[in-house]
Formats: sequence, C-alpha cells, structure tokens
Amino acid sequence: MIRFECDYLEGAHPRILKRLEETNFEQTPGYGTDPYCACAREKIKELCGGADVDVHFLVGGTQTNFTVISAVLRPHQGVLAASTGHINVHETGAVEAVGHKVLALPSEDGKIRARQIQKAYEDHWNDSEHEHVVQPGMVYISQPTENGTLYSKEELQALHEVCRELSLPLFMDGARLGYGLMSEANDLTLEDIAGLTDVFYIGGTKVGALFGEAVVISNPLYKRDFRYLIKQHGGMFAKGRLLGLQFETLFTDGVYFEIAKYADELAMRLREGFVKKGYRLLFDSYTNQQFPILPNEHVEKLKEKYSFAFWEAVGESHSAVRFCTSWATKEEAVEELLRDIEAL
Amino acid sequence: MIRFECDYLEGAHPRILKRLEETNFEQTPGYGTDPYCACAREKIKELCGGADVDVHFLVGGTQTNFTVISAVLRPHQGVLAASTGHINVHETGAVEAVGHKVLALPSEDGKIRARQIQKAYEDHWNDSEHEHVVQPGMVYISQPTENGTLYSKEELQALHEVCRELSLPLFMDGARLGYGLMSEANDLTLEDIAGLTDVFYIGGTKVGALFGEAVVISNPLYKRDFRYLIKQHGGMFAKGRLLGLQFETLFTDGVYFEIAKYADELAMRLREGFVKKGYRLLFDSYTNQQFPILPNEHVEKLKEKYSFAFWEAVGESHSAVRFCTSWATKEEAVEELLRDIEAL
Amino acid sequence: MIRFECDYLEGAHPRILKRLEETNFEQTPGYGTDPYCACAREKIKELCGGADVDVHFLVGGTQTNFTVISAVLRPHQGVLAASTGHINVHETGAVEAVGHKVLALPSEDGKIRARQIQKAYEDHWNDSEHEHVVQPGMVYISQPTENGTLYSKEELQALHEVCRELSLPLFMDGARLGYGLMSEANDLTLEDIAGLTDVFYIGGTKVGALFGEAVVISNPLYKRDFRYLIKQHGGMFAKGRLLGLQFETLFTDGVYFEIAKYADELAMRLREGFVKKGYRLLFDSYTNQQFPILPNEHVEKLKEKYSFAFWEAVGESHSAVRFCTSWATKEEAVEELLRDIEAL
Amino acid sequence: MIRFECDYLEGAHPRILKRLEETNFEQTPGYGTDPYCACAREKIKELCGGADVDVHFLVGGTQTNFTVISAVLRPHQGVLAASTGHINVHETGAVEAVGHKVLALPSEDGKIRARQIQKAYEDHWNDSEHEHVVQPGMVYISQPTENGTLYSKEELQALHEVCRELSLPLFMDGARLGYGLMSEANDLTLEDIAGLTDVFYIGGTKVGALFGEAVVISNPLYKRDFRYLIKQHGGMFAKGRLLGLQFETLFTDGVYFEIAKYADELAMRLREGFVKKGYRLLFDSYTNQQFPILPNEHVEKLKEKYSFAFWEAVGESHSAVRFCTSWATKEEAVEELLRDIEAL
Repeated sequence: MIRFECDYLEGAHPRILKRLEETNFEQTPGYGTDPYCACAREKIKELCGGADVDVHFLVGGTQTNFTVISAVLRPHQGVLAASTGHINVHETGAVEAVGHKVLALPSEDGKIRARQIQKAYEDHWNDSEHEHVVQPGMVYISQPTENGTLYSKEELQALHEVCRELSLPLFMDGARLGYGLMSEANDLTLEDIAGLTDVFYIGGTKVGALFGEAVVISNPLYKRDFRYLIKQHGGMFAKGRLLGLQFETLFTDGVYFEIAKYADELAMRLREGFVKKGYRLLFDSYTNQQFPILPNEHVEKLKEKYSFAFWEAVGESHSAVRFCTSWATKEEAVEELLRDIEAL
Repeated sequence: MIRFECDYLEGAHPRILKRLEETNFEQTPGYGTDPYCACAREKIKELCGGADVDVHFLVGGTQTNFTVISAVLRPHQGVLAASTGHINVHETGAVEAVGHKVLALPSEDGKIRARQIQKAYEDHWNDSEHEHVVQPGMVYISQPTENGTLYSKEELQALHEVCRELSLPLFMDGARLGYGLMSEANDLTLEDIAGLTDVFYIGGTKVGALFGEAVVISNPLYKRDFRYLIKQHGGMFAKGRLLGLQFETLFTDGVYFEIAKYADELAMRLREGFVKKGYRLLFDSYTNQQFPILPNEHVEKLKEKYSFAFWEAVGESHSAVRFCTSWATKEEAVEELLRDIEAL
Repeated sequence: MIRFECDYLEGAHPRILKRLEETNFEQTPGYGTDPYCACAREKIKELCGGADVDVHFLVGGTQTNFTVISAVLRPHQGVLAASTGHINVHETGAVEAVGHKVLALPSEDGKIRARQIQKAYEDHWNDSEHEHVVQPGMVYISQPTENGTLYSKEELQALHEVCRELSLPLFMDGARLGYGLMSEANDLTLEDIAGLTDVFYIGGTKVGALFGEAVVISNPLYKRDFRYLIKQHGGMFAKGRLLGLQFETLFTDGVYFEIAKYADELAMRLREGFVKKGYRLLFDSYTNQQFPILPNEHVEKLKEKYSFAFWEAVGESHSAVRFCTSWATKEEAVEELLRDIEAL
Repeated sequence: MIRFECDYLEGAHPRILKRLEETNFEQTPGYGTDPYCACAREKIKELCGGADVDVHFLVGGTQTNFTVISAVLRPHQGVLAASTGHINVHETGAVEAVGHKVLALPSEDGKIRARQIQKAYEDHWNDSEHEHVVQPGMVYISQPTENGTLYSKEELQALHEVCRELSLPLFMDGARLGYGLMSEANDLTLEDIAGLTDVFYIGGTKVGALFGEAVVISNPLYKRDFRYLIKQHGGMFAKGRLLGLQFETLFTDGVYFEIAKYADELAMRLREGFVKKGYRLLFDSYTNQQFPILPNEHVEKLKEKYSFAFWEAVGESHSAVRFCTSWATKEEAVEELLRDIEAL
C-alpha cells in the first residue's frame, strides 16, 4: 500500500533524528526553559523580521488551537471561523469543551472574507438583545486552509484591517504553514504573517518534525501568563528541549522551507496529472493537498494500491478524494501513481 | 552542573532512538491505529496477566490525569486525592478547568488510607444537605507518590475494597510506576494493579521514553468512547506510532524494568549516603526520589556543583531537598555526589 | 404604548399573588423540600398520567436547558437541535459554557424531523474518524417551537422512536408548553409528552407564573443526582416553596390550561386579522406567537402605538415581525390593534 | 414546630407583596431594562455615596458568586477564600464547574486576613515553577461571614490595600449584608464597602425579599459585558422588574435597614440568653446567626419544639448548633425559646 491519505504518515526529517541522538544524554531543565528552545525561539523571531514576539512550543494542533482560543476569549465570547475550519469540524468539540462557541461562517473554499467578519460583527451589535447571543471575540483562519487554498497577502491585510478596526484578535492556524509559504501561489512571508496576525503557529507535525507546533504571539495582551494556559491544558511538554531541538533543526539551513517546497512540487505534479486525465478539482489548491473528483470506479481501482481520503460524494457516480504529499513523500511513489492514473 | 532535580533531564533509552531511526520512513496510519501501538498494547495486556483491558497512549501526565478524570466523573462530582497529589498542587488547576473539584484529604506521606475514603464518603452522605456539596465520585492515588512512598499490596487491596463497596472508581497515576515496581520495598505487580484499580497508567516520560504514558482501563464503563475524550483534550497524537513504538521497545526484553531497577539502586545508594552522613529523611522513600534534610550551608555548598530541588524549610537552619535518579543517571555522578557529601 | 413584543410583560395570575400573600408568614424548609412543592409535584405527576416521573422546579428557561443538557451528556457529546432552537441562538452560549456543542440541523419552520436525526447519527458513525467529531448525544426540541409551530403526535412519536432506537435521549423545551397544549392545532397531551420524551419542562414564566419552569424527568438515568446539578448551576431556589406554590396554583382548577387557551384564542383573532388584511405569515403558527409580514410603512405606523418584535427583513419593502399574546393580554388591546391594522 | 434553622423560611416583607400586586398588570420590557430596575439602581448608587458603580440584579447567591468569579478570572487563575467560605463548601463545586479552583486559606472564625493574602501571593510568585500552580487571581470574602462574624472597617481597609497593591480584585459576598450593616459591632457603611471592594452584592433573599441579590460593580474592568455573563449563566431574569421592584421597595424608607436591625436585636437577645444559661459560643457573632454549644440532651429536648441547624460536635457530650433570626422572626418565638432554654 502506497499512502497518500495524510501528511503525517512517516517519522521525522533525518536531521532531527540525528540531533536527537547527538544530544540524548545531555541534561537540560524541563518545560521549555532549555537552550534548544531558546535557540529555536531566536531563529523564529528572526524569520519574523525580528518582531517582538513570544514563541512557545506545543505538541499538537488541536491542543494549540484550544489553548490559544481559551487564552484570548472571555467566557461569553465565541470564535468566528469558516464552517470548514478544523476547530469547527474535526476536534471533537475541543473549543466548546473550554467553554466557547465556534461561530461558523459559510465558506466554499475554506477561506473567510473581511466582509463576512464585518457583517457578523454588525449583525451582533445591531441586535437589540445582543447580550443573549454569543459575542464574536476573535477570528480563526487556517493557512493553508483545510481545503488546500491560500489567503493572499491582500486578503490577509483586509482581514487584519477589519479585525484591528473591530478589536477582534486574528489567529492563524498554520498546521501546514510550510506548504503554504512555499506554494507557487503564495505571496506571504513569515514576517508578513507575524505583522498581520495577533497569534499564529508554525506547524511541525506535518512538516518534517516528529511532532510540535510553534506558537508565535505578537499581541502583548495574549503573551501574559500564556505558560500557565499551556500547562493547564496539558501542553507543557516535560522534556521541552525535544520541541526546541526539532524547530532549531528545521530552521537551520532552511530545512523547513526546502522540504515544504519539495512536497508542494510533488503535489503540483499530481495536480497536473489529474487535470491532464480530465478530472475536475474540488478546490483550487496549490499546496500539498489535492482534491480531484474521480469516477467511482477509478476510486475503487486506485484503492487496491494506494490509500487516500474520501472527501465527499459528487453526484452518484463521482467522488472527491484527497491526496496529500509531504516532506517524506517519495518521488517514485508520485510517478507510479501518475502512471496508474494515466492508465485508468 | 550535575543534575538531580528531576527524572526527565535526558532524552530516551538508546534502543528507542534506534527504533525511531529504523522505522522512520515507514508509512503508518495515524492516531494510534498502527501496528506498533497494537503490539505495545498486547505486551501491556500480557504484563497485566492477560486481563481484558483497554490500553491508550497519551503524551504526558497532566493530560492523562484530566482526561481520565473527565471521563469518569459526572459534573457534580469531585475526585478524592491526597492533599499532596499532583492533581491538587502542580497541574495549574487542570482538573478544575474540566469542571471538577479536587477533594483533598490530609496526608503526611503522600498516601491516603481506606478509612479516609470511607469517612469522606460517610461525611458526604450523612450531610442532610449533601446536594449542596461536591459529591465524591472517584479516588486518585499516585504510585509511587509524589513523596517517593509506596502503597503496599495490602494497602492497595484495602483501597480497592472500600472503593468497590462505595462504587468509587479507583485511578492510579503511575507517572513513575517503573520506579515503584522495581523498588526493594514493593510487593505489587502490574497484574495486581490492573486487578485492583479501574484505570491506571504506566509512565514513560520519566522511565526511559522521550515522552508518553500508557493508560490501562479495566472497568468497561470507562472504556466506552475514551478515544473521543483523548481527542477533545488534545491528547490524540497524530503520529501515534511514535508512542506505540516507544512502549513496545520498553516492554521488549524487560528494558522498562531493568532501567527502573538501575535508577532505584542508585537512589538507595544515595539514601545510604545521606543516612550515613547523619541527615534525616523527610519521607521514607525506597524509590528514585530521595528527600534528605540538610543544613542550609550544605545545601549552598552542593548547589555550586549539583542541581536538585528545594522541597521545604525545616526550621531555620535546615532544608529538605529532593534528589532524583533516573534510568539515565550516571553511576559516576552518584559516586561523585556521595564523596562530596561525605566531605562536607 | 400597548405591548405585544413578548409573553413576559406582566406579573402573575392574580391567584398566585393571592396565594403568596396568604402563605407569606408560614415557615417552610428550603430548596424544594416543602409541602407546596410536594403538592405541585403530585399534581404534575397526575397530569402525566401517574407516570413514575421526577419533578423539579427551576427559575428560568436558559438555566433549565443547560442544567438538563449537562445532566444528560458526556463531555464529548453534543446536542442535536434545530438551527433556530433557543439553545443555539439566544442563550449566549450557555450550552457551550458547560462544554457541549450544539449540533444545529437546518430547519425552515423551527421543527426537526426524525429522518434528520437518523441521518446525523449515521453520518457520524459512518465517519471513519468519528472520534474526531462531536458525538450526537441527545436531541433537543421546543414545543411550541420558537416559530410558534407545533409537533403533532405523529411527529413526536417518530422522534421518540428514532431516539429510542439510536439511544439518544429526547429533551423537550416547553417554555411555552401551555400555549402548545391548548392550541386548536394540537393533538398532544401532557401524558403523551411524558411518555414520548426522556425529559421535558412545563414553562411557568410565560404562562401565568411570576417565574419558574417545572422539569419532568421520565428516564431513570437522568433522575439520579439531578438536585446536585440544579444546585451547581445556580438553580436551587432558596425559598423553593415559591415555585411549588405557583405551580400548585396553576394546576388547581385548570388555571394553567384556561389562561393558555385564552391567549391562543386572542392570537387566532390576530392571525385572522393579519390574513384578512392580506399579510402573509412567515410561519404557520396556531399558538400565541404570530409572525405576519408587513409593508415597512405599516410597521412604522404601528410602532407609534404598539411594541412588537422585528423578526427579519423580507425583501426591501417588507418585514416579518412577531406579536405575542399571553394569559395577561387584554382583549381590548387585541381589538384595538385589529382595528388599527384594518385602518392602515 | 418553631423554625430557626435558617433565614429564608418565610416569604417577603409585606410591602413587597403589596407592590407586586399594585404593579401586576403593568407592561414592562424584560431582562432588567424596566423603570423599576432603573429606580432601584439609583437608590443603591445613592447609598453607595453616588459612586460610579454598575448595579445588576440576580436571583440567588450561588449564581451570583460564580457569575462574578467567572467574569473576573482568566482560566488559569483561582479565587482566594476562607476554607469556610460558601463557595468552598456549600455550592456543589459551582466555581470549579466554571473552571476555577478555590484556593482555600485556613480560618477559625470565617475571616481571612490581609497577611494571608500577602503570603499566598508571595508563595505563588516565589515558586520557581509557578506556572504549574493555579495563580491567585482574586479574593472572595463574606460579610457577615458564614460564621456570623464581621470584618471591621480597619480589616477591610487592610484587605483593600493588599489587594490593590497585588492587583487582586476583591469581591464581597453580601448574602446577609443587611444583618452585617445593622449589627451593633459594625463600623462599615455601604459607601465604605463600595469604595473598598471591586465587586460586592447586597443580599435580598435573606433580608426581606422573595429572592434577589443586587450586584454592585465598582471596578470598570468588570463592568464590561457583564450582562452577557448573567445571561450565559442563567441569571438573566425574564421579568426583571420583579427584582427591581423588590430592591426599590427595600430601599424606600429604609425598610432594608430597619428589618435587618430588628433581626439582629432578636439575635442579641438569643445570645444573651445562651450566655446567661452558661453555654459557650462557637463563634463570636453579633449578627443574625448565633452558634451556641449545648449539651446534647438540651439539643434533643429543644428539637421537640424548635428546628435549628446542627453545626459540629464539640467533644462527646456537646454540639454546636446554629439559630438564625430574620426580618420575619416573631418576637414571641424568641421569647418562648428563651424561656424554654432557661427552663432546661
């Protein structure tokens, strides 16, 4: 079975394993207070243009999302998000479990627009009984989105402006951020993102690390006491240096960017192959997730040899499916898949 | 600086790193559904005497504690625990954050007794307005305790009996379970523990793994839907196989037990050295944590070369401190420390 | 200003005030353990056909909803409800604040159908990664709905059956239940409802009481410890007899039913008047809430003399509004309004 | 049976019932936006010396406590309170249910001292791993305390100063505030209290109202959006005017103060009688709750005719019990009790 169903099928970039081994018997204090975390923090700050940000390392995405959201919102507030957003559909109600409603905004492509934020805000405050309704308290977006699409710099600026104007903190889930940054369709830098969001994170789990997400907080309001919230929510990793070490390694010699670029390029070859075969694409993705619409018999045929994710039925005879590439995808695997598709 | 302040200062047992490397490019499905987790589960079930238990792998102790507790309790119930219990003092209110009060019972040595459970239960139900008071809903113990002490088989049986009689599930935090099992003072097996508790966990983070805790659920009531709770609370590790692989390795050829025994033996040598020097011990520990009471000037002197944890002031002139050994502690380090103590 | 904007504009049925006065200096124990509560409970049980139900008295609707929901669900479960349901839109996230997601089902008229429950359930369990999604754990309906519509006996039976089959408890919000029971379009009795739901409540606040909701629990699972949950959520009323006394009064000589019938009849006269005037109705309501669609200039004109609730814009030139009658609405007020509408 | 077991045995001051009747058919908008609430707010502001405070009306004490606490704290913070504080022992974990730990401070008499706050704060921040511990985020006191004792002006000023210095908001539970204000031992005014706390409330339920607590917020930080929190926690009373009307009545012609004084005087007569009989007092209370220590055979004898609350066993042969007076206690009842005690 050749697997394409997600981007966390393998272990970690070999350099990370090597560094784990080299440092294995060093003694360091726990909970992120070690030199490796310090070094990784510095590297990330530099990549953010030297901005005065706080950087924390957490283990996984769901944990990061509800920790940040609970740090930002007061009890009566909710988080605006695309209806397709990970927090709304795929985290077993983790946001609700910390007390907050996800205020879902309709989205075709996984993105939300500045005018949707504006409207949700106005609808709320124009309601004469607004205290009876969850107050919009922040905005959550994913880059790339769960559908592989990307916010352009212009779109992110528009979101930033509306959020600043309405005093709504903007939080970006960057579980797959590397694949976004290195996409041929991308025009945003880490520095841009640090400047245009209040909090965002750089995903490691899906981009070369064994595990780990690096949270970057620009807004001083949310820096305060953030470590308490990490601990309370189970995200204070005892051997914190394992997280620091991984991000230090990924951000040395540009490894993070290079491996993300590699995955995106393989995804673009898949995209090309799908299009050439005449498949339509459910979403217009230029990142490592591709969503072709296949005749059901092609799906069945491919399943004999490949694993990939069913996304949704398209009519009676077709299915949209998801193929992911990652830093670890083998070129040969992509080529074999392309040949097999061509031959269908 | 030679470090003894905790038992999570280094990385992992070399066999674990080796296995990570060997399997790094294998593709496995996520979230604990891979063959390594399956294999580790089987090994743990066997060690539990083939009991019909569910085994889940989580990342860290705090996370495990509040996930289990939230799985067991109804909203109006609290968890009985020693006042010194980790959940009561050192988890930033994680149990309260999921809605439950920790019902602290006084404890000198870190343990609670069957009669304390009985009394707390009776006090509650004899209160004519008991609906105004948090209902005792389960019992939390640590083995070894946070003070290095151990429940004997007889004591655990007594807890088990009172809990069964009162319908209070019994949960054991085994963050340092290995050091308990291999202590010269221990008379409990994993099989005993599986039979005498409703849920317990086997700590990996402090006993040879990079990270990871293996939750063992005996009571069918709490098996149901447990994976949802793991996910909701941020503990559903994407590359679950990393957890399975670590526990599989630790439970192959008895590695887990051997390395725990090694740490206990080093701790016993420290204990002997402290006693020989005339230090009193704050707690009567036969596990990897030792709590000698030192004159403050000895503390200051030792701090120049060693790190260890301050525990509490004992009068004006003395301090109780904690020295930990672990699977990774070097024999030479212990010997050097013993020489330096002798020379004080 | 003549007010029609809601059904809680006035105090209480005069008999209730009289009884408050008569009993004012009696001494009774608190928290619902007094003889008035006992008597009210008996009357309600009788109305439910002598069913073996538990009856509790709470202060208001939001409180009742989140108390019941938190009593029923486990942490990873959510509550299926119409997207228009009070818990989804008008309770400031009270359900989320106790940790649960409202799983909104689309609804045009305020009702949900058995097949929607079936589908939501199947969609959940057919999802191969269902542990990543909030599990449907119960069903919430309102009778009458927030749109004034009613479930027929057949519809409620269908819901009951699908819920029983899928082990989903069924909870009915009866904040306006009196107006439902006495509607000319109704074919359900309290006995039917007690038999077809697991929990429901009989609204007092909107039907003749100063305040108060009577929760009726049929399912033994949710009877257990319910008083703890009431207390924890702030609903344990100190002078509980005030609640008992009100419900006792309402259920003596059929007051509750008589006054609800009166309000429904006034509402039907309004309905007739709207239709005669040529207004369309947003919802087909035979209860005390009426939702005519008026030209905006009529709305403006009526606002000079009457208060009523804006519901939603209908095109550029019309608005749907809500007029409520209640047990306290004056016949003259309705007649005056009808004359004024006719004259528009 | 003559009842003394608590101070919420009867209905309401007759003036309140009269006003309810007079206003019963007035139509007013809901949720505290009516003229009666406005008027009551003005009266309370005046009593607070014209301070710029926000006043909200809630239904009961538990609800008020957890609503205020959840409005003030961030998720990782707890509330410092006497171990005997109502929130710690008698609210079924309502504070924990909204996510916060009660940080109990030892107390013999129900009060906590400024130096205890100082120490708890310092202990927290001096802990090198303070992020692992719940952060003290506010202070809760009761006036009078659950033991009938009172903070003097000097003591409250000391608390105020330490709280201001440490940025810990100070919250006073005034469920029985009237009985405190009118005690012969009291030297505090409402104006003092408004100036020395961040939030406090004036209890109605136990002092002449049918129900209701008036929350007074001085600190602008906690004024913001407070109505959302009331609604979310089930405290937004539909017919809000019932609360306004009651407090308006209680604060017209000094009713509130007069009836509280009456109850205190009866309590002083009881106290005198207990002392004369030779009973010791468990707490030195000059308010409406008295805690004599009786020989068990006297307890048994009195129980035949009177109800009162068992407090705690004192040795084998004695019991501390609680007798409460209230605005509604009959003078004859007190005299009869005194005679019966004398005759024992």
